[in-house]
Amino acid sequence: MTRLRFAPIPAGLPATVPFTGPETLERRRGVPFVARLGANENGFGPSPKAVEAMARACAEAWKYGDPDNHDLREALAAHHRVAPENIMVGEGIDGLLGVLVRLTVAQGDVVVTSDGAYPTFNFHVAGFGGLLHKVPYRDDAEDPQALTAAARDVGARLVYLANPDNPMGSWHSGALIEAALDELSADSLLVLDEAYAEFAPDDAIPQIDPEDDRVIRFRTFSKAYGLAGARIGYAIGPAKLIAGFDRIRNHFGVNRTAQIGALAALQDNDWLEQTRRNVGAARERISAIAQDNGLTALPSATNFVTIDCGANGDFARKVLAGLSDLGIFARMPGTAPMDRCIRISCGPEAEMAAFAEALPIALAKAREV
Amino acid sequence: MTRLRFAPIPAGLPATVPFTGPETLERRRGVPFVARLGANENGFGPSPKAVEAMARACAEAWKYGDPDNHDLREALAAHHRVAPENIMVGEGIDGLLGVLVRLTVAQGDVVVTSDGAYPTFNFHVAGFGGLLHKVPYRDDAEDPQALTAAARDVGARLVYLANPDNPMGSWHSGALIEAALDELSADSLLVLDEAYAEFAPDDAIPQIDPEDDRVIRFRTFSKAYGLAGARIGYAIGPAKLIAGFDRIRNHFGVNRTAQIGALAALQDNDWLEQTRRNVGAARERISAIAQDNGLTALPSATNFVTIDCGANGDFARKVLAGLSDLGIFARMPGTAPMDRCIRISCGPEAEMAAFAEALPIALAKAREV
Repeated sequence: MTRLRFAPIPAGLPATVPFTGPETLERRRGVPFVARLGANENGFGPSPKAVEAMARACAEAWKYGDPDNHDLREALAAHHRVAPENIMVGEGIDGLLGVLVRLTVAQGDVVVTSDGAYPTFNFHVAGFGGLLHKVPYRDDAEDPQALTAAARDVGARLVYLANPDNPMGSWHSGALIEAALDELSADSLLVLDEAYAEFAPDDAIPQIDPEDDRVIRFRTFSKAYGLAGARIGYAIGPAKLIAGFDRIRNHFGVNRTAQIGALAALQDNDWLEQTRRNVGAARERISAIAQDNGLTALPSATNFVTIDCGANGDFARKVLAGLSDLGIFARMPGTAPMDRCIRISCGPEAEMAAFAEALPIALAKAREV
Repeated sequence: MTRLRFAPIPAGLPATVPFTGPETLERRRGVPFVARLGANENGFGPSPKAVEAMARACAEAWKYGDPDNHDLREALAAHHRVAPENIMVGEGIDGLLGVLVRLTVAQGDVVVTSDGAYPTFNFHVAGFGGLLHKVPYRDDAEDPQALTAAARDVGARLVYLANPDNPMGSWHSGALIEAALDELSADSLLVLDEAYAEFAPDDAIPQIDPEDDRVIRFRTFSKAYGLAGARIGYAIGPAKLIAGFDRIRNHFGVNRTAQIGALAALQDNDWLEQTRRNVGAARERISAIAQDNGLTALPSATNFVTIDCGANGDFARKVLAGLSDLGIFARMPGTAPMDRCIRISCGPEAEMAAFAEALPIALAKAREV
């Protein structure tokens, strides 16, 4: 017995973490990356109105943020035509997923996700003692039918589904998501991660009553709104479930400047539309670069494009390493067969051009060895 | 069985929260407060260099912050003459306390604190299924001897001690804290909350080897550095314990602009010294206002002054309500006999003058009824 022992659940966890940050890689490399295209950050940046509002707010950083996130919740409720009681704001989807898992998953409860889907969700499930049951992707997409079927089989407490999907960029129609809800067993809650929803076609977004007790949705200001560093996202769900977050969340956890920036970003629809156009053009640019190199870009409803490198995981890992050597920060799916691909975030033309220049060199080098 | 049921621990928690934010009170009042003196925020504000660095960083809020908090950790390690492996940066002390409790407290473990000490720590202990054992204050101060004695009696996993103390502003010598460590049983870890350390006399800070496995210390940028809204604090402790945080923390949880602001704030020692002088003068101003009204201000090693209103909790609550009616946001200790007091944060002269004007009116009204 030592004082430094951990409680049983954390004692049983590996010391690994979901993601290594690009800054850590840069420190290992000794030089900064030329293009930061690995974390699906939005290099087109936040709305200038949000930047201005945040910059103005910095002098008042001595004030704690409003623990109720009142103004932002009201605005989000109006935006989504739901009640403020259906909205919970938190420190990004990452933070909110952690609170949801803690709130709903007891030690030993089973949680269903896709093999290769968002690792941070898995990190939270393991971190609270849940047991992960993984379902394969099907045709490079998460498979709602298989997920709900598995959930019934194993008696899952939660079922995680990202639509659109990360890391593949694939998506399902809203109608198919709604049908999956009807397949859900009476004891399972669907965790619908819509981090990339603003980049998806309108018909990919399901129509869900916020009080539908079968599902909780997650949205973020990190992607379409370009505020990843602000750490602010939100959940939409039944008021009873949303209120549960108050029992355990870090009430004063959201940065005050982020609250102000998110509100300003939400109100600047023109910038969002421009971002969508920029991202759409960058998706085409990345696809063209892939094609120029004899590779296939997968269709994407997100701000990244997943490129099939045409061989196995070892080859794609070599391509990724080659890109890194040339100053391109990218990532790739971690699970076969999706790990034949690399994943490139959409960004401004300078980064796209750097990628276009680096890819043939990285490919040639990967083919050499 | 419903899908919206909570896991057993959160299911057993009350729906109450540690603190109501001033914005919520303002919405209830219908008008903003004149003086924000209730949350020990630092109205003298952050270093202008930190404000400038943060304002410049807002345009790059599209980047996630470095999950390793590398640059800030290095700077903090140099500042405290410890290794970076002894430092963990997180979303304020609140967030870090939650991770520590989760990391070390199993359901049913006993945790010792003082009756009336920081409620957010208690919130986390209850939130992870720990059992709180409370020791009375002694002479308006936390009682290290009683805390360590109780910890031995009940076999405590953690012992919480704030030095200086919130809400009373009292403090112990570093030597006394060091002596308390020697009284700690072999299985207990001291949680030493030093949120207000920068306002305390030098000899109130214990000399502790960072690898001393009996204690983990917590510091923040919220108080002396004026960055409460940035949500950034840090722990100092044995590398093995600090590394444990990586198993469960929200790795990308710290706001990028906050990382940059905290680093700039740490480097501006002149501003810190000026803040200390401003706070010292404001403490004297608050004490003089108390004296002018026939009340006794307690000695303080923090950026607030706790004022004995000279009667019981009911009377102090009336004074507080009267202050609120007059636009002064303040708080008070929640536990007898400390609840005979109100607690006033140090701030610029305009806020002090508003308090000076309101206090006699609030007192007269409290005495009427």
